[in-house]
Amino acid sequence: VSGNGSFGSRPGPGALLELIRATGAISRAELARRSGLGRAAVSQRLDRLLAQDLILETTELPSTGGRPPASLVFNAAGGVVLAADLGATHARLAVTDLAGELLAEVAEDLGIERGPAAVLDTIAAQLTDLLGQTGRTPADVRAVGVGVPGPVEFATGRPVSPPILPGWDGYRIPDHLYRHFPVPALVDNDVNIMAVGEHRMNWRDEEDLLLVKVGTGIGCGIVAGGTIYRGAQGAAGDIGHIRVAGRDDVICECGNVGCLEAVAGGRALVRAARELGFAARDSRDIVALARAQHVEITRLVRESGRVIGDVLSGLVNAFNPQVILIGGDLAEADEQLFAGVREAVYRRATPLATRRLRIARSVLGDRAGALGAAVMALEHVLDPDYVDACCDAEATSPRRPRSTSARSR
Amino acid sequence: VSGNGSFGSRPGPGALLELIRATGAISRAELARRSGLGRAAVSQRLDRLLAQDLILETTELPSTGGRPPASLVFNAAGGVVLAADLGATHARLAVTDLAGELLAEVAEDLGIERGPAAVLDTIAAQLTDLLGQTGRTPADVRAVGVGVPGPVEFATGRPVSPPILPGWDGYRIPDHLYRHFPVPALVDNDVNIMAVGEHRMNWRDEEDLLLVKVGTGIGCGIVAGGTIYRGAQGAAGDIGHIRVAGRDDVICECGNVGCLEAVAGGRALVRAARELGFAARDSRDIVALARAQHVEITRLVRESGRVIGDVLSGLVNAFNPQVILIGGDLAEADEQLFAGVREAVYRRATPLATRRLRIARSVLGDRAGALGAAVMALEHVLDPDYVDACCDAEATSPRRPRSTSARSR
Repeated sequence: VSGNGSFGSRPGPGALLELIRATGAISRAELARRSGLGRAAVSQRLDRLLAQDLILETTELPSTGGRPPASLVFNAAGGVVLAADLGATHARLAVTDLAGELLAEVAEDLGIERGPAAVLDTIAAQLTDLLGQTGRTPADVRAVGVGVPGPVEFATGRPVSPPILPGWDGYRIPDHLYRHFPVPALVDNDVNIMAVGEHRMNWRDEEDLLLVKVGTGIGCGIVAGGTIYRGAQGAAGDIGHIRVAGRDDVICECGNVGCLEAVAGGRALVRAARELGFAARDSRDIVALARAQHVEITRLVRESGRVIGDVLSGLVNAFNPQVILIGGDLAEADEQLFAGVREAVYRRATPLATRRLRIARSVLGDRAGALGAAVMALEHVLDPDYVDACCDAEATSPRRPRSTSARSR
Repeated sequence: VSGNGSFGSRPGPGALLELIRATGAISRAELARRSGLGRAAVSQRLDRLLAQDLILETTELPSTGGRPPASLVFNAAGGVVLAADLGATHARLAVTDLAGELLAEVAEDLGIERGPAAVLDTIAAQLTDLLGQTGRTPADVRAVGVGVPGPVEFATGRPVSPPILPGWDGYRIPDHLYRHFPVPALVDNDVNIMAVGEHRMNWRDEEDLLLVKVGTGIGCGIVAGGTIYRGAQGAAGDIGHIRVAGRDDVICECGNVGCLEAVAGGRALVRAARELGFAARDSRDIVALARAQHVEITRLVRESGRVIGDVLSGLVNAFNPQVILIGGDLAEADEQLFAGVREAVYRRATPLATRRLRIARSVLGDRAGALGAAVMALEHVLDPDYVDACCDAEATSPRRPRSTSARSR
């Protein structure tokens, strides 16, 4: 029995909001019945939710008899969240309403090596522009969700030893963003937010899912029991440095030999393609060459798929997921990557673990990260404890603007 | 807001029991304050808990002033759970009180190939004997916890395609045990219950833990976010058939090549020891030879440790646990196994994932499974929803014996 502000241990406004969202539309009487609260307590909580713009009371005329009309609905237009998926060279930004509906999005070039302060100031300015395009104002912003390409200590929003983020180690991203948007900022690894995005949008009925991002590097987001699994240092899913059998001849940037991403990632494919005489610069070029059906390239991609599948077969045995999704630039290559992955997984993983396993392409593609960042932010601001805290803060200091009173994590 | 019988969505008897257990001892007034319930509602719920023998009201005289004396305590002696950890050739049985204190235990030979009906009848008779030794009666039994050597569909308690359990596939173990003990029976994989036992008894503060059992075979129990992670088919942790680099010359019983347990498990060590001229029959003999410091055996064990550590390094990257515990027969061998595991894990896993990683011996040894099975049973019968359901059943049909009214899962 955890405390929830002035609402004691009885259902607070946040719990009522959950009921309203779950039912779509519900009457005050039904809310009282389902929550176990009296009518007065229900009204007091609904007043708080109305003040927070989180619900609407519909003004339909009462029906001519029988059950009273459903009258309370979730106000998805009552605010927005901002989302940013930061990569090494690009960022994808988005604004969604409180139901996760995309209101605006944009892809921008990004030099993440400029360091956190400069990058975050740029991102904040771009997000403010994007927000303006939706006709909303900074006062409408409830939270910001951010993905970064490296491990993150989720509770504090700080990158942890990020290999490709010089200057970002330990940087308090939420504190910096707070100067621009005085609301909570949630930060996670880029592959984790992709996994969240795919899970919530397309695979909500599956409890256990792996999302594997195959781009320049290779990483994995793990959904276990319906929630993101982050591990002890936020490093869970860092599969790019798992040792590949028989490839100790390949030296990885990390200093070890035979690492998965050094053998089968985008950089390795680019190098191999160049050695074959192709003018490839990055993994997008590999995708273009594979789509053009250059047989030597499709062979390279297939072999990458096999190597990735061999490592994934170990994860399938250990983790027994229902679904593996492949995303990232190279998932856009032709079917050879998937064929290689499937071949190796079904050859190596146990029959029980592969009995109902599905291996599919990421449906959201390169939007998975930004949509996942938005979902992460939304789940925070709609969490019952957080809603209760906001309602409490509004009630005890009504003149304080909601957006600055709501920053607790 | 889930329903909980006649108690609506307000705190039921189960929630009050949690408060009582968490505080150790608490007054009625304090319970009312912490639960948000009125005094009358608290009393009604406490009456139900008293009728279920789950709490005691202490009869101390009131203090001479100041705060009222704490008066409600958890009644750990109010019942028992039975536990059975079934292996291929041995079973370990235990009886604990409701606090998990061991009241009696015994190890028995077991021929699991006799099939589920014969084995479960034998186990039930042995558990009844053991129960008698504690001075308790079958009416005191609240639940049974069972571990079996293979994957289990946890929700139904049925083994799934167990390779070493002919005749057990799909067998409804809880239904069979119900004939002997008309209470809930919880069934899980033997390595999962070891992980539960170790986690709850010794590592409760760690969220993410791997328990690796190294015996004839090799398996792994995964605690993720404080709870057992079972995967889609209950097959999570089945690491014995992960491919070991460079050992495709070794054929496994599963039909594949290079599987971890075929290369580094007890059976492989026994074969290798025999080829060196030692008279070894099972992994216990390997332990004895290693302890006697036969240098060729310690070298074999160390190499097994390295191979296991190489596979674990992949799991450390993917899963980022705080702790890896090694249990099973071969964990009783000398330090060479651990030295090999540590060497490989620290060489291969990423610096971030190993920064605070602990690799330790299973503290409970061969009692981890039986204690874990007891914990699994206890957590079921003390779960607030289950307690509420029992209290409801007692209230609505008071003549029905508690032990038969309480079988809902």
